Amino acid sequence: MEKLSRRSINLAISSRALTTIKAIDGENGNLYHNLVTNATIPMKGRMIHITDGSLDSQLYSNKGECIYAIDRQKLNNALISEAESIPNVSFKFKSKIRAVNFDERELSYETTEGLQSDNRWDFMIGADGAHSVVRNQLMRVIRMNYAQEYIPHAYLELSIPPGPIDPETGEPSFLLDPNHLHIWPRQSFMLIALPNQDHSFTCTLFAPFEKFTELADNKDNFIQFFRQDFPDALKLMGEESAAEDYINNPKGSLVTIKCSPYHYKDRAVVLGDAAHSMVPFYGQGMNAGFEDVRVLLSLMDSEGVSSSKKVKHESLLNSLNRYSEERERDLKSIVNLAMGNYVEMRSKVINPIYLLRKQIDGVLNKVFRPPSVPSANILARTTFPTAANSGWMSLYELVTFRPDISYADAEEITKKRDKKLKNYTILTAFTVATISTIKIYKLLRDPR
Amino acid sequence: MEKLSRRSINLAISSRALTTIKAIDGENGNLYHNLVTNATIPMKGRMIHITDGSLDSQLYSNKGECIYAIDRQKLNNALISEAESIPNVSFKFKSKIRAVNFDERELSYETTEGLQSDNRWDFMIGADGAHSVVRNQLMRVIRMNYAQEYIPHAYLELSIPPGPIDPETGEPSFLLDPNHLHIWPRQSFMLIALPNQDHSFTCTLFAPFEKFTELADNKDNFIQFFRQDFPDALKLMGEESAAEDYINNPKGSLVTIKCSPYHYKDRAVVLGDAAHSMVPFYGQGMNAGFEDVRVLLSLMDSEGVSSSKKVKHESLLNSLNRYSEERERDLKSIVNLAMGNYVEMRSKVINPIYLLRKQIDGVLNKVFRPPSVPSANILARTTFPTAANSGWMSLYELVTFRPDISYADAEEITKKRDKKLKNYTILTAFTVATISTIKIYKLLRDPR
Repeated sequence: MEKLSRRSINLAISSRALTTIKAIDGENGNLYHNLVTNATIPMKGRMIHITDGSLDSQLYSNKGECIYAIDRQKLNNALISEAESIPNVSFKFKSKIRAVNFDERELSYETTEGLQSDNRWDFMIGADGAHSVVRNQLMRVIRMNYAQEYIPHAYLELSIPPGPIDPETGEPSFLLDPNHLHIWPRQSFMLIALPNQDHSFTCTLFAPFEKFTELADNKDNFIQFFRQDFPDALKLMGEESAAEDYINNPKGSLVTIKCSPYHYKDRAVVLGDAAHSMVPFYGQGMNAGFEDVRVLLSLMDSEGVSSSKKVKHESLLNSLNRYSEERERDLKSIVNLAMGNYVEMRSKVINPIYLLRKQIDGVLNKVFRPPSVPSANILARTTFPTAANSGWMSLYELVTFRPDISYADAEEITKKRDKKLKNYTILTAFTVATISTIKIYKLLRDPR
Repeated sequence: MEKLSRRSINLAISSRALTTIKAIDGENGNLYHNLVTNATIPMKGRMIHITDGSLDSQLYSNKGECIYAIDRQKLNNALISEAESIPNVSFKFKSKIRAVNFDERELSYETTEGLQSDNRWDFMIGADGAHSVVRNQLMRVIRMNYAQEYIPHAYLELSIPPGPIDPETGEPSFLLDPNHLHIWPRQSFMLIALPNQDHSFTCTLFAPFEKFTELADNKDNFIQFFRQDFPDALKLMGEESAAEDYINNPKGSLVTIKCSPYHYKDRAVVLGDAAHSMVPFYGQGMNAGFEDVRVLLSLMDSEGVSSSKKVKHESLLNSLNRYSEERERDLKSIVNLAMGNYVEMRSKVINPIYLLRKQIDGVLNKVFRPPSVPSANILARTTFPTAANSGWMSLYELVTFRPDISYADAEEITKKRDKKLKNYTILTAFTVATISTIKIYKLLRDPR
């Protein structure tokens, strides 16, 4: 098996992706178990690093739910191994699609041996990322609405090495708490860090392209910048090593991509980043991609695509039509939520009003608990009805821990609730004001 | 000279394009004069065709200003001839750009003789339409924000032939008033007709794709549909001839395209539909494209690009930076206005409230006249300051007849004014209501 390796923003995996993996795994599989045990580190909250060096741990959930830092290569390899175990699956690496004629089932692709062609296929799934060639080919045959938008920030990967060997375990220590996603919010830029299994941390700096132009690929400028804004992180990275990373690692751009519809007849569909690229600030990019698979599978099941050995093309077409129609609302929602969190993560997390609101939410969360949270196992490969009672979970919790509630429903539920909360607040304020006025009036009339 | 010919939606040309042509023409040129005299038919208003056959003429302007139906081929040929008269201009027809390396000034393009390459160029202007290859190549080197959106309507071209020979002039007659843009608004679909110089009319049917699916490429279905909704137009077209057109002519899709920025360094820029495709419902598609040229020229002038024989690359870069920065607001505005008119043209033009509002506007227009409308000649190749006093012209008039006011400013001026008008209306209604209440109260107290 060939190994894939590419630098990228660290991956956070949570219940939407894990639910899909369980669904694919089935009862006897152990993909889910192996992945969670061997390739992840649980993160139970955000650790906010203030410039003065003080720390603030903000738990993601009152019920101990976590998101997980996952090793991208281990995840890739596990998925490839799983697929390879299916008899009629084969892999062709180092092949680049050049053109597709969907109606004629003609595919031409380039390998080191030159241009190849293939017409032994029925149905194409384009899961080829933000710069999807399959999507570009689809745009030639369908009237696809499409939008791409770059944000003014770039990202740069840096690294915190493992700490000294712990004499008790014989393993290197972590230089930061491994069970948190670390954030250094600094308004117009920020640094984050996710733990790795070798006890290092991968850090990502998000800053406007202008900032990088200002630093002018100069090590001293960079060190000066970090000494001022991220002194604790710089100490852990090591000045020389961080400056090396700054010079050598690429400054990547961040793009949001939306499109619709996602399919062409019963012949092709795009999933994952190929259909919806989002900025990485909600930790849902990969989760949404995995969820695409579960939603499409559940629609195929309900249309009876795989009920006989031979694929029924009409059922396949119906399920794809429904997929494009029903999925758009959810994907638009999460792409927009990720863009919204772009501001929240680098500034709101240290805003006192945001923190107060989070505390109020926490109290209400305990008061209005949902009667039961459906287990991910039960949900697997079924179309979910929206849970009637979502309790008082925050939007972040609904998005991250409740795969039984769609992205768009989560957004709607919390919007309605926020409006209600606002009205209650006004009503309460009004009542308090009225009672006070009456009291003052009485006091003035009868000042005893 | 090679002739270009392609079917397309009829072209309406108005002051923004004509101002640019005058600017290019200079004092001694006669391009403007030749074009307006030989290739256009003035249209002074909309002629609304109600289903019962009655007509309603709605003038575009109280001051007799017109828009012009123009022959696309004559316009193309005139522009090509004009360009050919410049010594260092040459044309390469039937050549398709395949790839551009902007930094290395490498251009590869395909002709009937195979792939060619060219590196003898300094600056590339991509005016290659909605499916611009130059724009696609730019997207590989700049972080371009880009959005395309299809509307659910398709368009189909039909034709009304010239009438019988007029014995007085010896020329064929027009079967409809030639000095109007004819509209048959039918809510979810509509037909329009523009006059041609051979005294025929080119008609365009706009209808949802679903409607065409419903008609199922069947002549009888089509004739039935037209007999019911466009009986007068069908009679003029001739049933058999209209049905032939319906079967043979393509059903085109309509797309809105926005992007930004429009340029790369001092090396390339996209203009016209390549930078902003809009639906054809404001008659501004081509006008906006011509205006791009005037705006860019005026910026180049003010940055001193052509003040010496040798192009100053820093000045060119400055003017392109300013172009991308300053032009985006206007182009976004007109693309959105065109989309807004998509609804207005097929339904609002027969709405009584819309018509009443139009009459009120007409009165206010006479009361609040702008002191003077600058002549297009004076405006040529200068950066326009927004006219401080736009009088009380409707948004349509500002967009169509006032090239000295930018699209975005026209939108803003009328929005502010509408808000004011609304407040006046509320104030008036409130005053009237108060006076009436007092009168009624008095009447009740003293009912003599």
